[in-house]
Amino acid sequence: MPKGLVVQKYGGSSVANPERIKEVARRVVSYKQRGYSLVVVVSALADTTDELIELASAITGKPPEREMDMLMATGEQVSCALLAMAIDKLGYKAISFTGGQVGIITDSSHTKARIVKISAERLNNELKKGKIVIVAGFQGVTQENDITTLGRGGSDLTAVALAYTLNAKICEIYTDVEGVFTADPRIENRAKKISKITYDEMLEMASLGAQVMQSRSIEVAKKFGIPIHVRSSFSHKEGTMIISEAKKLEDVVVTGITINKNEAKITICNVPDKPGVAAKIFKEVSNAGINVDMIVQNVSHTRQTDISFTVLKTDLPKATRMTKKVANKIGTGEVLKDQDIARVSIVGVGMRSHHGIAATMFETLAENSINIEMISTSEISISCIIKKKFADLAVKALHEKFGLGK
Amino acid sequence: MPKGLVVQKYGGSSVANPERIKEVARRVVSYKQRGYSLVVVVSALADTTDELIELASAITGKPPEREMDMLMATGEQVSCALLAMAIDKLGYKAISFTGGQVGIITDSSHTKARIVKISAERLNNELKKGKIVIVAGFQGVTQENDITTLGRGGSDLTAVALAYTLNAKICEIYTDVEGVFTADPRIENRAKKISKITYDEMLEMASLGAQVMQSRSIEVAKKFGIPIHVRSSFSHKEGTMIISEAKKLEDVVVTGITINKNEAKITICNVPDKPGVAAKIFKEVSNAGINVDMIVQNVSHTRQTDISFTVLKTDLPKATRMTKKVANKIGTGEVLKDQDIARVSIVGVGMRSHHGIAATMFETLAENSINIEMISTSEISISCIIKKKFADLAVKALHEKFGLGK
Repeated sequence: MPKGLVVQKYGGSSVANPERIKEVARRVVSYKQRGYSLVVVVSALADTTDELIELASAITGKPPEREMDMLMATGEQVSCALLAMAIDKLGYKAISFTGGQVGIITDSSHTKARIVKISAERLNNELKKGKIVIVAGFQGVTQENDITTLGRGGSDLTAVALAYTLNAKICEIYTDVEGVFTADPRIENRAKKISKITYDEMLEMASLGAQVMQSRSIEVAKKFGIPIHVRSSFSHKEGTMIISEAKKLEDVVVTGITINKNEAKITICNVPDKPGVAAKIFKEVSNAGINVDMIVQNVSHTRQTDISFTVLKTDLPKATRMTKKVANKIGTGEVLKDQDIARVSIVGVGMRSHHGIAATMFETLAENSINIEMISTSEISISCIIKKKFADLAVKALHEKFGLGK
Repeated sequence: MPKGLVVQKYGGSSVANPERIKEVARRVVSYKQRGYSLVVVVSALADTTDELIELASAITGKPPEREMDMLMATGEQVSCALLAMAIDKLGYKAISFTGGQVGIITDSSHTKARIVKISAERLNNELKKGKIVIVAGFQGVTQENDITTLGRGGSDLTAVALAYTLNAKICEIYTDVEGVFTADPRIENRAKKISKITYDEMLEMASLGAQVMQSRSIEVAKKFGIPIHVRSSFSHKEGTMIISEAKKLEDVVVTGITINKNEAKITICNVPDKPGVAAKIFKEVSNAGINVDMIVQNVSHTRQTDISFTVLKTDLPKATRMTKKVANKIGTGEVLKDQDIARVSIVGVGMRSHHGIAATMFETLAENSINIEMISTSEISISCIIKKKFADLAVKALHEKFGLGK
């Protein structure tokens, strides 16, 4: 008796080698045995992507993006063929497809293409025949049949988009962690697995440093209301369900704590406090292709103010250069930079209806003698920039204070 | 000023690593600089094919052929993307395609598919834009868009078929030897490169043991009269031109000598000499999927005869088993097998018009005390089965006698 369709996605570590692939095949078959239809999306074998990038770098420092996609797409093609073989070996019928073969049509922004449509006719035909369908993640083709890749988190996106197109019951994202935790378990050993989290919370956590899933695919899942189950391919425990707010019944104020050590802070001192100055600064920086994250400007009492903002550490040299240039033009004071910072954030939809959460966070940091350098808030998160050396201490203290280990 | 189209094919050793790929790119560009249009067919990087087979074997002893094609086709996709990058790096426009993308449509005999048609529209469009077109060899797609591979020598076949479809001036096959030699240079160091050879001679030599090109692609080239230039990607010397007989002006009787040590001999003694017996024997053997090569049956004086035939050594156990079974049924004498044999052959279209070539061959072997165990002839070749230990001696003696080293 058919139980409906499940879309599963296995990441690179889940299909790292032939043994792991056989393990995945056994898991897939166990679903089939329980009566589910299955579409399985796979990433490239763990080391393959690096090896392909290395080959390309040995040839040119600047490979054309179209050719880079042609090259990289082979990684997922290899793993999906191998998984189909492993399932066949267990006596079940499987068929593998590239992104192009299942009709994943994208725009032509090579290396970061967007899915335009999915014409899943072939895929549906094979499902009707009772086959387990394996799809190479991370890839598609343009209308002209050129191979494209979907950029970071692309395999998750393939899975979520197929789950939507095929009207799947659920989209399971298999990874090497057991789900989303209240904090990074490597920092706080009392961190607990979150059993249910809303799309919005997950989006905040992803953008604030939790690396389980990329924001893009969570956004798509949210848009179409596709339930996602993030879980480990190395165990059989339940993971974390990502669902809409309406379905989350528990009243938790703070769901999780994230830490991000990849940012650096730039401060422009003594900026003339008149209209249009901030715009001028950030226009130049963004024209240079630098993504600015948190921006803080204090009220001014002296017709001058300080503006601070954070950028990715990798962008720091370029961002500093651009900032100094524009600071010079405007006539500001010194430009300072600081790499020894961390952003600690608390996330939770409960913040919408609870007051005093920010105060509790600031108090907790103060009790631990941690100075707050910048503050920024969204509807369901509060972030503080602190000295990097206090990062782990801050996570532990906040985890304790908001009762997340219970 | 356009000089017409050249199709080039580079084998696995020619694109073994990034350095070799850059070298190939320089050669390709040098043709472009001289005004040629170019379509370049590439094989997989030398070790890739083995690595992919190893991955599959680690998963199953019997991979489904469709999935094997899906897996293997990635090898050529990698090398064609890398070559396009290397050409781009030299400042020339290149674009890479899979077999499917250039419209190489095959039947659905996975792992050994036959090309049904090539719809080269996209390819022609890119050539018109002045681009160097790189095509992944060895592969195509079925009408249903399933990926297929063309079997052994498949990349040569891709090149020859494209040369025909695009009406190319010439098809250059780049390999790691400088061309076709009068004998294996590892055996006879006075062996000379043959500058011109006919399709028929090349076909005989390929089937008799010369490993430069597979018969299939030579047959296609012959059928459509496509001139082929077999040459080395490791030097700039001219190689061997494979051409139609009409274009070969020199009057050489013997073009080359081949040796094949991969066969074994089976002899059935005392076979009743009556109609239908040979048919019965070879039907059973061929039903078992064993390819029989040379067959010799002597005239009989005693109403009994001996029948000998050769098979690939790898088929010997199975062939012996089948032969004993049928010999038993028919009521013959003993079944003997011999693995220590070699087939030495002389090839040349001149044999058609010259007499006494066979006699010269037999005399030469006799002068060196080499016993001939079986003889077989075609219109342009003569083959003798001799003891394997005499193989190199036979090659040297015949090479000398027919004046091939001059």
